[in-house]
Amino acid sequence: MSKIATATKRLLVGRPFRSDRLSHTLLPKRIALPIFASDALSSVAYAPEEIFLTLSVAGLSAYAYAPWIGVAVAVVMLVVVASYRQNVHAYPSGGGDYEVASTNLGGKFGLTVASALLVDYVLTVAVSTSSGVANIGSAIPFVAEHKVLCAVLIVVILTSMNLRGVRESGKTFAIPTYGFIIGILCMVAWGLFEALRGTPIRAESAGFQLHEETSLAGFAFFFLILRSFSSGAAALTGVEAISNGVPAFRKPKSKNAATTLLMMGVLAVTMLIGIITLAILTDVKFAEDPATQLAGAPAGYQQKTIVAQIAHAVFQNFSPAFYYISFVTGIILLLAANTAFNGFPVLASILAQDRYLPRQLHTRGDRLTFSNGILFLAAFALVLIFAFHAEVTKLIQLYIVGVFVSFTVSQAGMLRHWHRLLAHETEPGARRRMRRSQTVNAIGLTMTGTVLVIVLITKFLLGAWIAIAAMVAIYLLMTAIRRHYDRVAEELSALDGSAPTVLPSRNHAIVLVSKLHLPTLRAVAYAKAMRPDVLEAVTVNVDDAETRQLTAEWEAKGFKVPLKVIESPYREITRPVLDYVKRVRGDNPRDVVTVLIPEYVVGHWWEQLLHNQSALRLKGRLLFQPGVMVTSVPWQLESSAKALRRAARARPAAGDVRRGFFTDGAHRAGAGKDGGR
Amino acid sequence: MSKIATATKRLLVGRPFRSDRLSHTLLPKRIALPIFASDALSSVAYAPEEIFLTLSVAGLSAYAYAPWIGVAVAVVMLVVVASYRQNVHAYPSGGGDYEVASTNLGGKFGLTVASALLVDYVLTVAVSTSSGVANIGSAIPFVAEHKVLCAVLIVVILTSMNLRGVRESGKTFAIPTYGFIIGILCMVAWGLFEALRGTPIRAESAGFQLHEETSLAGFAFFFLILRSFSSGAAALTGVEAISNGVPAFRKPKSKNAATTLLMMGVLAVTMLIGIITLAILTDVKFAEDPATQLAGAPAGYQQKTIVAQIAHAVFQNFSPAFYYISFVTGIILLLAANTAFNGFPVLASILAQDRYLPRQLHTRGDRLTFSNGILFLAAFALVLIFAFHAEVTKLIQLYIVGVFVSFTVSQAGMLRHWHRLLAHETEPGARRRMRRSQTVNAIGLTMTGTVLVIVLITKFLLGAWIAIAAMVAIYLLMTAIRRHYDRVAEELSALDGSAPTVLPSRNHAIVLVSKLHLPTLRAVAYAKAMRPDVLEAVTVNVDDAETRQLTAEWEAKGFKVPLKVIESPYREITRPVLDYVKRVRGDNPRDVVTVLIPEYVVGHWWEQLLHNQSALRLKGRLLFQPGVMVTSVPWQLESSAKALRRAARARPAAGDVRRGFFTDGAHRAGAGKDGGR
Repeated sequence: MSKIATATKRLLVGRPFRSDRLSHTLLPKRIALPIFASDALSSVAYAPEEIFLTLSVAGLSAYAYAPWIGVAVAVVMLVVVASYRQNVHAYPSGGGDYEVASTNLGGKFGLTVASALLVDYVLTVAVSTSSGVANIGSAIPFVAEHKVLCAVLIVVILTSMNLRGVRESGKTFAIPTYGFIIGILCMVAWGLFEALRGTPIRAESAGFQLHEETSLAGFAFFFLILRSFSSGAAALTGVEAISNGVPAFRKPKSKNAATTLLMMGVLAVTMLIGIITLAILTDVKFAEDPATQLAGAPAGYQQKTIVAQIAHAVFQNFSPAFYYISFVTGIILLLAANTAFNGFPVLASILAQDRYLPRQLHTRGDRLTFSNGILFLAAFALVLIFAFHAEVTKLIQLYIVGVFVSFTVSQAGMLRHWHRLLAHETEPGARRRMRRSQTVNAIGLTMTGTVLVIVLITKFLLGAWIAIAAMVAIYLLMTAIRRHYDRVAEELSALDGSAPTVLPSRNHAIVLVSKLHLPTLRAVAYAKAMRPDVLEAVTVNVDDAETRQLTAEWEAKGFKVPLKVIESPYREITRPVLDYVKRVRGDNPRDVVTVLIPEYVVGHWWEQLLHNQSALRLKGRLLFQPGVMVTSVPWQLESSAKALRRAARARPAAGDVRRGFFTDGAHRAGAGKDGGR
Repeated sequence: MSKIATATKRLLVGRPFRSDRLSHTLLPKRIALPIFASDALSSVAYAPEEIFLTLSVAGLSAYAYAPWIGVAVAVVMLVVVASYRQNVHAYPSGGGDYEVASTNLGGKFGLTVASALLVDYVLTVAVSTSSGVANIGSAIPFVAEHKVLCAVLIVVILTSMNLRGVRESGKTFAIPTYGFIIGILCMVAWGLFEALRGTPIRAESAGFQLHEETSLAGFAFFFLILRSFSSGAAALTGVEAISNGVPAFRKPKSKNAATTLLMMGVLAVTMLIGIITLAILTDVKFAEDPATQLAGAPAGYQQKTIVAQIAHAVFQNFSPAFYYISFVTGIILLLAANTAFNGFPVLASILAQDRYLPRQLHTRGDRLTFSNGILFLAAFALVLIFAFHAEVTKLIQLYIVGVFVSFTVSQAGMLRHWHRLLAHETEPGARRRMRRSQTVNAIGLTMTGTVLVIVLITKFLLGAWIAIAAMVAIYLLMTAIRRHYDRVAEELSALDGSAPTVLPSRNHAIVLVSKLHLPTLRAVAYAKAMRPDVLEAVTVNVDDAETRQLTAEWEAKGFKVPLKVIESPYREITRPVLDYVKRVRGDNPRDVVTVLIPEYVVGHWWEQLLHNQSALRLKGRLLFQPGVMVTSVPWQLESSAKALRRAARARPAAGDVRRGFFTDGAHRAGAGKDGGR
């Protein structure tokens, strides 16, 4: 797998490069589009469906509104794209909405956006996977019959891939994404052509009747239209992705990013409208509960996704095309799910930098911590999939809130941004440009704000509240973490010019000795080199015989260093040493005690179980004693060489590509060096 | 709980003592008996039952042999006790069978005994718990109907108690053990008295008929008798316990231990014979499968344990006595199960000393490692309980092998022991005593050896093979561990007078700096005090802004120490530092690099997640580099004080009492000291 990835990388960005040629590894637009847009584009696979599905409640008559809703969504989409082009120019650092919000509106808003995005990552996984399964299921009945199972399997696979550190490579995205775009566009084109030629293209569900449970009228009906619209707004999810990925673009970064964003917007809108049109033309019936809502359906009718039904209708006597559409749709949806796994670390590292998340998330290669993040993501996504039986429709209700919260807040932020700039800008040309941008963002704000309100009103009880609750929880957690860091920072910056700056008056070095072997000798030799004021070796007598032998050997060796024996009636190690060290140091705050602990460095985890346990425990406890320094004097056992090689075999981390990191080559170089030793 | 324990201790061994008054805390015989003998005594609760149960196959006629089998078991018991009195005198160190075997017959035999004992500990838990449940079940139908559930619950409770470190206290053992002894003896006495008075005492099962499936004859019958005998031999389990506990006795240790052993033997035999006699007198019918084997039993007849049936018969119109017997029997059996949890650490620490188990098990207070041991014990016991539905009869089949393996081997060892002594002893009186002891052990050997063979023959297919397989597995594991330690020891003792003895030629100290705060200042100050040949501060540039700020502050502070900035294009920390350190050290094996890492010491695990992660990872990797020393310069955050207090609140470790450790007081003293800081 990673072999392929490497091959691809060579193909795309030339031979393995050195860290100093980082810029060479950046993404051309043709690759950036699939990598960042797969999420947004894939959402046109379920957005139209949701529109029809919601309308179906009000019966067939309501379907007439579908096109207008589609247009409304398209307009919002284009406005949002236009606004984000401003963001991309103004904030090329990849901070995205979070940065815009926090710099212009302050941390609280930034954190709100962050919480929203984190929740969205979880939902992206859940929704995309479920929809992907639904689409593949349209081609393979088995999958349709075991939706939840398949969805779970897919999440598990994605998780393990990202845990192992499979790198997003341009190709793995490019092929299915372009495959999807081309597929859908061809389908739309061919479908329209057929329609114009007057060929009757009818979906399999064309013949069914649609019960209208309750003939809605007046406000209720209007409400339904709004709800249908906010379901359709799901098409906008993932639009912001590019604004987080600017640094990965080739220069001129902002310009390229903006262009890519536009391409994406146009493509999305075209496909969306196209699909809705065909749905109308092919007379698709789509209901939330086919069994009860659709009359005339054959017994045990498995409702296919709208895309699948259209494909079926358009390519009626050419099934390969139908399968192609179903699969490519399924796959791009899974890619979309995977983007969440890669987007998370990026956002996490930015949040970590601002100390809202554990600091180490900011630096790369902390596989452990990222892994925890990935596992969280997967776990919550699985919970949702189980809870809502991998039903896209149910999950959608939670999805859109987060997206539009961040849209709205970031647009508000942009308004402020331009406002600030205009305050100092005098050059008329520049001012004009700024005014224009500001207007765009203003429109964006009103638009997204309205949608957000609509979404909240129409979906709150249907599940949006869950998403909101989650956001609040995350928000509180992150503020708590930040508060902790601040408290500590304050505690640590108390530079009252006291203790730490002045040199310790006396350094009393203690070498812990259990046996007289090479590690001990090394420790003693090293301790001497430290030229402490006092140097002594200390051993704990847990076994008289052994101790006697040790002291004898010690004498024989004729060290200049005295060996002191601490009694331990209860065969303990930690406590006697602690007590001794405390005694030695006395209460003079300016004295330090240096405890040197010879350690074996081993190659396997199970060896770790057999060695150093007492040492580790002791070290842990010693660190609690003021004025005590602990030095590990390592002795590399032969087996450790293996581990060194293992460690050198570094793997890529999730989200690398999005941050413009292509680290394989660099690591391999490093590995070579290590291996050499 | 531990409060009570302390109170008890004060009661028994006076006020909290200092470590230098250890001997004062040793056990008087009256307390030692219940602590060490509960296992052995409790086994008389199920041994007679097993005799009758096995015989029941051959029908009522076979019951006639029960008394003789009982006598045979009693004889073996007394012989074994006599032999172990020799062990106790010859090996007062508490090494028990393991020590006897390894010193006289060599490590292989020692290890065999050890494996046998370890397996036995698991079985002790399983059998005692199951039998305990059966006895309590005789009084409370609910328990009888949910045997497995109850047994599992009990094991779980015992485990958590021992994990938390509840100390065996004299009282907790004394009360139920003496309660049991007195109860059974009274029952026997009263029963016999009634019988002599001619009062008809009949068990509830007296009236039932016993089908004899197959009228066994000749060899088959003889075989059955043998099997019944080896089931009865279960009464001997736990006899060796005292020989492991000699150090915990008051002086003269050996003599007191020997006396206690004798008392135990006599008590056990009396109760065993007594119960068998009453079983015959009360005409008890006991079958493995009452439903099919017992005719005349009421529908849904719940077969009570023999002890319970006898109690019922003897105290017919006085039910409190019946309940008393049932409960006290149940409780002593649970105590017996608990002894396994306390016996394990003792054996483990001895095995660890000989490097057959992880070294740290030898020292006390490694709660973690012991906990793992306790969990293993519990896990395997639970597996057995599930696998055999908490059926004593089924479990017994696995039990006795291990016991008799260690009996036999240790007796063989004793023979050798005396043989060796006799070689050098000239004084006739002493020689005579030795000869006597030797004879005793010789008889012991033949006896236990024979029983072992009988057990193997009669039980191998019934389950003994499982126990044997387990022993082999453990044996192999322990030899593997030993081999590893030996290999390492060899690798480390290669004192070719090379590298480690000579002083490092140059010491290049590197202080890792992330921010300019107190921990950094302390680290720098300390580094200066080490007077290295070169001293520099190093920071990794993962964030340009922060780095710029840091360098500026550094200049401002006007340290004499230069601050070097390492670039990290991929926002890594570990690798760049590693590479730098490697470069600095160069290839001169006599140079050392000291890396000083400022560390925060925090009080809660979750704080640990927020700090030091990068530092820890880096440290781990640095240790793999030859010639690199890593020094942690701790900075205690305020919260760390809490943890210090927590840690000081030390708890007793399982098996303390058996090793003559009563550490509460000592710990409290220590805690006081810590708390003071």
